[in-house]
Amino acid sequence: MLLTAPHDLTSTFTSVRALTETLAGRLSPEDQTAQSMPDASPTKWHRAHTSWFFEEFLLSHQDGYQLYDPSYRYLFNSYYEAVGARHPRPQRGLVTRPGAVEIEHYREYVETALASRLEAGSLTDRELELTEMGCHHEQQHQELLLMDAKHLLAGHPFDPVYVNRDVEPDVGAAALGWRSVAGGIVAVGHDGNGFAFDNEGPRHEVLLHAFEIADRAVTNDDWLAFIADDGYRRAELWLSDGWARVQAEGWKAPAYWHEQDGQWTTFTLSGRRPVRRGEPVCHVSFYEADAYARWAGARLPTEQEWEVAAAGVAQQRGQLLDPDRCHPGIAGSAMIGDVWEWTASAYLPYPGFRPAPGAVGEYNGKFMCDQHVLRGASAVTPVGHERLTYRNFFPAYARWAFSGLRLARS
Amino acid sequence: MLLTAPHDLTSTFTSVRALTETLAGRLSPEDQTAQSMPDASPTKWHRAHTSWFFEEFLLSHQDGYQLYDPSYRYLFNSYYEAVGARHPRPQRGLVTRPGAVEIEHYREYVETALASRLEAGSLTDRELELTEMGCHHEQQHQELLLMDAKHLLAGHPFDPVYVNRDVEPDVGAAALGWRSVAGGIVAVGHDGNGFAFDNEGPRHEVLLHAFEIADRAVTNDDWLAFIADDGYRRAELWLSDGWARVQAEGWKAPAYWHEQDGQWTTFTLSGRRPVRRGEPVCHVSFYEADAYARWAGARLPTEQEWEVAAAGVAQQRGQLLDPDRCHPGIAGSAMIGDVWEWTASAYLPYPGFRPAPGAVGEYNGKFMCDQHVLRGASAVTPVGHERLTYRNFFPAYARWAFSGLRLARS
Amino acid sequence: MLLTAPHDLTSTFTSVRALTETLAGRLSPEDQTAQSMPDASPTKWHRAHTSWFFEEFLLSHQDGYQLYDPSYRYLFNSYYEAVGARHPRPQRGLVTRPGAVEIEHYREYVETALASRLEAGSLTDRELELTEMGCHHEQQHQELLLMDAKHLLAGHPFDPVYVNRDVEPDVGAAALGWRSVAGGIVAVGHDGNGFAFDNEGPRHEVLLHAFEIADRAVTNDDWLAFIADDGYRRAELWLSDGWARVQAEGWKAPAYWHEQDGQWTTFTLSGRRPVRRGEPVCHVSFYEADAYARWAGARLPTEQEWEVAAAGVAQQRGQLLDPDRCHPGIAGSAMIGDVWEWTASAYLPYPGFRPAPGAVGEYNGKFMCDQHVLRGASAVTPVGHERLTYRNFFPAYARWAFSGLRLARS
Amino acid sequence: MLLTAPHDLTSTFTSVRALTETLAGRLSPEDQTAQSMPDASPTKWHRAHTSWFFEEFLLSHQDGYQLYDPSYRYLFNSYYEAVGARHPRPQRGLVTRPGAVEIEHYREYVETALASRLEAGSLTDRELELTEMGCHHEQQHQELLLMDAKHLLAGHPFDPVYVNRDVEPDVGAAALGWRSVAGGIVAVGHDGNGFAFDNEGPRHEVLLHAFEIADRAVTNDDWLAFIADDGYRRAELWLSDGWARVQAEGWKAPAYWHEQDGQWTTFTLSGRRPVRRGEPVCHVSFYEADAYARWAGARLPTEQEWEVAAAGVAQQRGQLLDPDRCHPGIAGSAMIGDVWEWTASAYLPYPGFRPAPGAVGEYNGKFMCDQHVLRGASAVTPVGHERLTYRNFFPAYARWAFSGLRLARS
Repeated sequence: MLLTAPHDLTSTFTSVRALTETLAGRLSPEDQTAQSMPDASPTKWHRAHTSWFFEEFLLSHQDGYQLYDPSYRYLFNSYYEAVGARHPRPQRGLVTRPGAVEIEHYREYVETALASRLEAGSLTDRELELTEMGCHHEQQHQELLLMDAKHLLAGHPFDPVYVNRDVEPDVGAAALGWRSVAGGIVAVGHDGNGFAFDNEGPRHEVLLHAFEIADRAVTNDDWLAFIADDGYRRAELWLSDGWARVQAEGWKAPAYWHEQDGQWTTFTLSGRRPVRRGEPVCHVSFYEADAYARWAGARLPTEQEWEVAAAGVAQQRGQLLDPDRCHPGIAGSAMIGDVWEWTASAYLPYPGFRPAPGAVGEYNGKFMCDQHVLRGASAVTPVGHERLTYRNFFPAYARWAFSGLRLARS
Repeated sequence: MLLTAPHDLTSTFTSVRALTETLAGRLSPEDQTAQSMPDASPTKWHRAHTSWFFEEFLLSHQDGYQLYDPSYRYLFNSYYEAVGARHPRPQRGLVTRPGAVEIEHYREYVETALASRLEAGSLTDRELELTEMGCHHEQQHQELLLMDAKHLLAGHPFDPVYVNRDVEPDVGAAALGWRSVAGGIVAVGHDGNGFAFDNEGPRHEVLLHAFEIADRAVTNDDWLAFIADDGYRRAELWLSDGWARVQAEGWKAPAYWHEQDGQWTTFTLSGRRPVRRGEPVCHVSFYEADAYARWAGARLPTEQEWEVAAAGVAQQRGQLLDPDRCHPGIAGSAMIGDVWEWTASAYLPYPGFRPAPGAVGEYNGKFMCDQHVLRGASAVTPVGHERLTYRNFFPAYARWAFSGLRLARS
Repeated sequence: MLLTAPHDLTSTFTSVRALTETLAGRLSPEDQTAQSMPDASPTKWHRAHTSWFFEEFLLSHQDGYQLYDPSYRYLFNSYYEAVGARHPRPQRGLVTRPGAVEIEHYREYVETALASRLEAGSLTDRELELTEMGCHHEQQHQELLLMDAKHLLAGHPFDPVYVNRDVEPDVGAAALGWRSVAGGIVAVGHDGNGFAFDNEGPRHEVLLHAFEIADRAVTNDDWLAFIADDGYRRAELWLSDGWARVQAEGWKAPAYWHEQDGQWTTFTLSGRRPVRRGEPVCHVSFYEADAYARWAGARLPTEQEWEVAAAGVAQQRGQLLDPDRCHPGIAGSAMIGDVWEWTASAYLPYPGFRPAPGAVGEYNGKFMCDQHVLRGASAVTPVGHERLTYRNFFPAYARWAFSGLRLARS
Repeated sequence: MLLTAPHDLTSTFTSVRALTETLAGRLSPEDQTAQSMPDASPTKWHRAHTSWFFEEFLLSHQDGYQLYDPSYRYLFNSYYEAVGARHPRPQRGLVTRPGAVEIEHYREYVETALASRLEAGSLTDRELELTEMGCHHEQQHQELLLMDAKHLLAGHPFDPVYVNRDVEPDVGAAALGWRSVAGGIVAVGHDGNGFAFDNEGPRHEVLLHAFEIADRAVTNDDWLAFIADDGYRRAELWLSDGWARVQAEGWKAPAYWHEQDGQWTTFTLSGRRPVRRGEPVCHVSFYEADAYARWAGARLPTEQEWEVAAAGVAQQRGQLLDPDRCHPGIAGSAMIGDVWEWTASAYLPYPGFRPAPGAVGEYNGKFMCDQHVLRGASAVTPVGHERLTYRNFFPAYARWAFSGLRLARS
């Protein structure tokens, strides 16, 4: 079922593609080439891979379409086994050719080919669906592009700047309050109206027990209290794997934080900045979120609890992606935006989940193992990509997403 | 609340302790010393650690009790952070002193001290509870001892024998049938009557959707069909992490299986034997169980589904630990015994779960991350240790437990 | 002692600096950024480091000189402990800023500063010596730049081209002959007339026993016979460490070689090319050179034997760096050029060796452990950098240098 | 050429075999099983391997000889590729069967078989030579057995005792003096009279330059001065690889040393003991020896210098293996005994070196790469195994040998 009107789809396609180039445009060819860890990818790879997605799943089946370069099928396939062999992920940073300019040409080639078909109205409904999916896919990679760029730049010894932004005053958030949510049989998951990824459905009923949920995210101010109370040094607060990680990697604070002479700073996409008290804590792992909740005498909400609670919030959206900001605002009442929120839920298929047939079915299902669900969205999630039922997921140790948390209790 | 009559407790304590020595007695001092991988422990370490458990949590608080050797607090603590520093787990196989005979003395010392207090009736209710828990703890380690010994001996190039046993004829299992289970709100988890580990409770209600479950475990015969159909070579059947593991470790069959001239054999505690068709497949990882289920057009049951289904089975118990056998029997209708069955459930706390206060609270809760629940019990689970609500758990890659699977479908 | 006339030094300085930019100029900013392995460095790092060398050891001590950017002291120090902390070597490929253009500015800044002082005649003799040394240092890095670029490009799946060059006909070399060299007390090492690195002296006497040395290097044709005779599969030909490496890395031929349908090709800086029979074999490790010599019933010469033998060759120089070629020619009678030749000698200090005082003394001496001496020079050694007494050195496993061998026998 | 009278050979054979059992007899079956690192081997492996050597190279070729157990060919081959496949070295500690008692039977079986043939006079000269070589081989393993046992026991957290020995008073050594040795053409290496390993020959001439050598080894007292002068914290004293090792492994003193409240102790085979000032420093790596020499304004002697110098010492032998001691004495004038002395020489073949044909030729030659020569002998070298021309060798990082150093200067 096509979910967006064809005319809107052309407009969406055009603006999504343009945003990727805006975000990448602040990075030099050198910046766009490096891969700072196997979990991350080079900017120019993101730019090419999102184009490959349209080419592989859609354009390559079109009469008269010529692949831009057959080698790109190998170079820019991410993880689709059904498509064939691909370049090893940890070596993406060594593929210096094609370069940034060549990839710009590739992007234009793919865009022109698809835009002309959109305008000609020659695509089938399934193809229009794939176009829509490709736009959402590209939006996902926009967030990854910014996460990965931040990780790369943060590794530079001299704190480079991705986007200039004024230093903001240190402001606290409102005091934390609790909101009660009644139990009972509730429906969760996406209902099929409008676009969603396959992992968000099918919508299904679950039995929830009554619970309370915090009316704002955990803030930097809260986190400083956790640090001050030896949160990173008390084994009893931590999952066993988390404690091992704390010790092996010497964690003493969220990723990118640094303390000097009693002052904490954090690396942002605008360079190193003082930690602001009222912002939601960001770049913490699931292990840290879980330990914090235990320390606070609370717990993380399950993703079902989170979804039901968020559905009841009047103003749902906080800070989403503003290319001139790329950073959370002060924690408020919204549950979508600023930071992704770790939940207590393992990333598992919903009852009745079936991946799509073919290669595109590898999008989500095969990762449903040993990952943890985050809900909400973040200050680097593109506007329009956020969704109440969105299931983001990362391994428990991951800290390079814009990830924070919100407390719950029974 | 004390769950076993004091008199029975003495008898249980005595017989549990004796069984450990029976199982260990078939292993030489050399066998008892080696650690074949970080996940496993030496036999003599199991013998000492189970004694340390009684000493640390119970006897050390008794008036007039002298520690057998203060250094054992360091050597035989497994993972209790609250108890203090401990010998690094991967180096347990390098602690050659104390030796097997010295550990026998240690065991006798602890046993005498505790038995005399049990007989004198001088223990408090909490202490009696800890005694009971210590017996269950030791039974758990009896199974681990056998798993670890099997792993060690299997690594020998010439297939040594732990226990002599006649070769049994190749027999098939009954054809697989499906049993329907109605949905609705059901209660799962342990209700507090009789002993259970903390992770089995609290009992709570969940909403289940109707499902079907297979009336026997997946057998070796079934598995041979999976192998023959290229099950280990088709990426689309596997979780992403599972496929990576298949390739990195060259998996082509369950652990301990070996093929020569078209004949499959498997290493057992009675040496290398032909694979028997009707036995439940054993020593498969979660990844393999999941891939098999996908190949079979089915899925793994959740642990809640499993528990509800098992509650409805007339004859629940199959092959549990027989020290002269240590191997599953032919797959039958029982759901408890022969092999542990991987479920689709991640190992997470039940709603309202609270670990016990103090060091003993580290028993279960801190491992609730990136592990997978197995239900049932196996042919090396001591009689009396099995339970309908028992939640066993291992990482997705683990294959050295006696682990198999049962199919479900919606 | 200043070894080059000041006027010549200015000219040398200018032309050396220009050659670096010529070589780098064929690589895109993306190519110049990546680091293909910890042993290699990015092109733009080489460009910056060679400038830093002049800045650190010479300009920074000049009145009125302003460092271009103080952070470069950290970023572009290679291994000089006495200079201070430095960026970790394996992460050079993640320093995307400064970029290629910024480094061009840095180079010009340093060049202008030093050239003006050279022209003004204001440098002391020691400073002129350091200038000369810096030129030789930069020439060394020109060869490294090409080695590293070749390694990087060879890792691309589609064989990119660094420099266009016509395919040359397959030609054999002359039959191998032997040349006798008499024994006796001979002097080896640099005598101090003209520039040399510290490790080439002091000149000293050694006792040589009479030996024979091949009149040309081992060729690809020779090597194909070694492969055909199962050279890579016969343990008895190999050093123990070498055999372990053969198995761990699956070596079946020199680095960059690839066999398809019985035809061998090799990756060159002009893309993938058929292996030419008459070229000296290139990109073999010490292990392979040693195994080949054993297979051939011969041995590698010691570096003293090599030096004495080379001194007696009429026409010493073969193919040195031609930026339009960057590849060995057909093996001839010259001993300097085409490929570096592994010797049997461990890289150790000559009797009486003393490193220079200060940081510059770290240039050579501290690497005199578990490395192996190569003599001669290669097709990517800049003209003027070759020397009869030159001691190149690499670990036994290294294959990314343009390294081959020549046989000797007693 | 048979080098020992047949009658003496029987006596040697019997006493060598007995000494192995004496040394092993102080270790429990558990102690004899564990392998503390890949470089070390279990005691019972040493006992079996030394028996296998006689069986493989000698007895297996005898008419009527039955292998004790054909699987031992696989289990107890150390590194002889020509003999065939063998158990992976890092997993020797996991072969718990055969156990210590079974290996005693194996030893007796081999001993009886060989002793009867020795007594019957039925062995050929070549076989008698191999018998002699097997005795030397076993003596070598006696030293390894003690080194490996020390390493294993030192890893225990509570300092177990291998052999009881009284604590000795803290005594200093004599002040260090220098002895001059004239230069010239000298002959070094074994001359073929009496037994020697192949790597000690052929005897050959070298040109030495005049030098001075210390009249005693570097002592613990000397070493404490090096530590006090920040020897382990000054990069300029170290080889590059050595400095990396110092930092990666946190070296602050020789292996087994521990400092508490300003008092240094060291682990010995008699448990933990105060460091005695006058003993030669022991368990230092080549890196440390080299750094010390640089700090002291001296250098290590080459192995040729060492040999010539030692030949001129009146009383050559210090503390060799006394099974009731197993520890160096106070440093005196002897050059053979107490500790092995690192030389400046890489372990390379002497001119004209040819390994023996067949598997036994793998004894030495294939290790001549990236190892460093030690000369002398140590307090765990069996009497009769020491030799002026003996070339011991270890990697530069190794510290578990009884290794020290002696200074030289030009």
